[in-house]
Amino acid sequence: MIKLSDYSTLPPKGLDKKEAKEESAKMAERLGKLQEMLFAQKKYSLLVVFQGMDGSGKDGAVDNVFQDCHCGGLQIVSYKKPTEDEFGHDFLWRIHKNTPAKGIIGIFNRSHYEDIIIQRVHKWIDEDRVKLRMDAINAFENLLLEDNNTQILKFYFHISKDEQEVELKQRINDPEKQWKHNPNDWKERESWDDYMRCYEDAINKSAIPWHIVPVDDRWYRDYFILKTLVEALEKLDLAYPKIAE
Amino acid sequence: MIKLSDYSTLPPKGLDKKEAKEESAKMAERLGKLQEMLFAQKKYSLLVVFQGMDGSGKDGAVDNVFQDCHCGGLQIVSYKKPTEDEFGHDFLWRIHKNTPAKGIIGIFNRSHYEDIIIQRVHKWIDEDRVKLRMDAINAFENLLLEDNNTQILKFYFHISKDEQEVELKQRINDPEKQWKHNPNDWKERESWDDYMRCYEDAINKSAIPWHIVPVDDRWYRDYFILKTLVEALEKLDLAYPKIAE
Repeated sequence: MIKLSDYSTLPPKGLDKKEAKEESAKMAERLGKLQEMLFAQKKYSLLVVFQGMDGSGKDGAVDNVFQDCHCGGLQIVSYKKPTEDEFGHDFLWRIHKNTPAKGIIGIFNRSHYEDIIIQRVHKWIDEDRVKLRMDAINAFENLLLEDNNTQILKFYFHISKDEQEVELKQRINDPEKQWKHNPNDWKERESWDDYMRCYEDAINKSAIPWHIVPVDDRWYRDYFILKTLVEALEKLDLAYPKIAE
Repeated sequence: MIKLSDYSTLPPKGLDKKEAKEESAKMAERLGKLQEMLFAQKKYSLLVVFQGMDGSGKDGAVDNVFQDCHCGGLQIVSYKKPTEDEFGHDFLWRIHKNTPAKGIIGIFNRSHYEDIIIQRVHKWIDEDRVKLRMDAINAFENLLLEDNNTQILKFYFHISKDEQEVELKQRINDPEKQWKHNPNDWKERESWDDYMRCYEDAINKSAIPWHIVPVDDRWYRDYFILKTLVEALEKLDLAYPKIAE
């Protein structure tokens, strides 16, 4: 059982920022190379899930981590409030459509976990439904992995409440960030403890484990995610297919 | 545990064909009425699955059973050999996309069960994969039911081997049916016993039960399916929504 409060939101002491950024640049390049093989081989797909509070830096991570990947092999989906058509279906309907085909890296900026987090925090669904959905998520992720070789890497963007305030204030004060300002984020912030409890529970009940990324310093966020992705892909038997004799 | 060989492929003795056909016409009309309420209420959806050997009359049942339903509320999907894009995903990917929204009657002419029947008969997948897929199907159908009120009615079209021969021969001899002729159907027929075993196993391992329809006489096929559908829908609390005060 993990407790989020046991995890720091800051980089580990002793890691030099400049060195880490240099390392990140190399890893981003390596990720591009690995993606090329994944794309050519079409044996595996990769599903990367980013979840976290408003202002925890999900958009920035999408930009930075995959900067050396080629766009044709990426499929980035940002989940917003469900449409009427989406609400007319089970919660995984809109998610399943967007799962990556073999050879593709799919990135979910928010995901099916919203349906057991924001909906649970606001009690739009009851606890029986939360359990049903958690079981459905585990069955769904297992299907992707076992029936389609989809490697699933889920990242929880672990931000401190103080740092969130800094981030949300920047969205008011910085003209280039004002388009991201949403008064509702401040409202959601009032339910911080409930969010933490729901995230913690989702993380603990997931069959496929989560990576808890300390995101207060954005350079470490990128370093952590890149390291995790590169290490995971290096473990696969990725290779360029040979010309058939 | 059901055994298909215990089930007759013929109508029960004592049921008069003429009376049954009259009854079917009334039930088709009633189904149209029930569909209208389902569509207006948008509380439930209905997923009707037709599975059975070649020549077992799935297409004809689609035409006859839903003749008094309005097309705007029907969503009919015939599953053929998966495309390259579909093969690039897990087997439920192409299925989930087509599940009916609340208010809609979805009809699957063939379905996700193909992926544990034809693929199993030909040993394109191993037994571990069959088990994985059966578990995934049960989780998937439970999700549709519990998260979206989707009522699932699955019909196995139970035809005798002799009657299949009659049907397939008609596709050679009747100019209006020749477009349906496919020499591969005769090839598949050679694996008849394996098909029966795989159907039986799928039916026995399904959490949501199957209806075994005797289809050798097509008038009884329609009667049986209509009766089952109408009775299932009558059990729901379908109603026209009232104008809000």
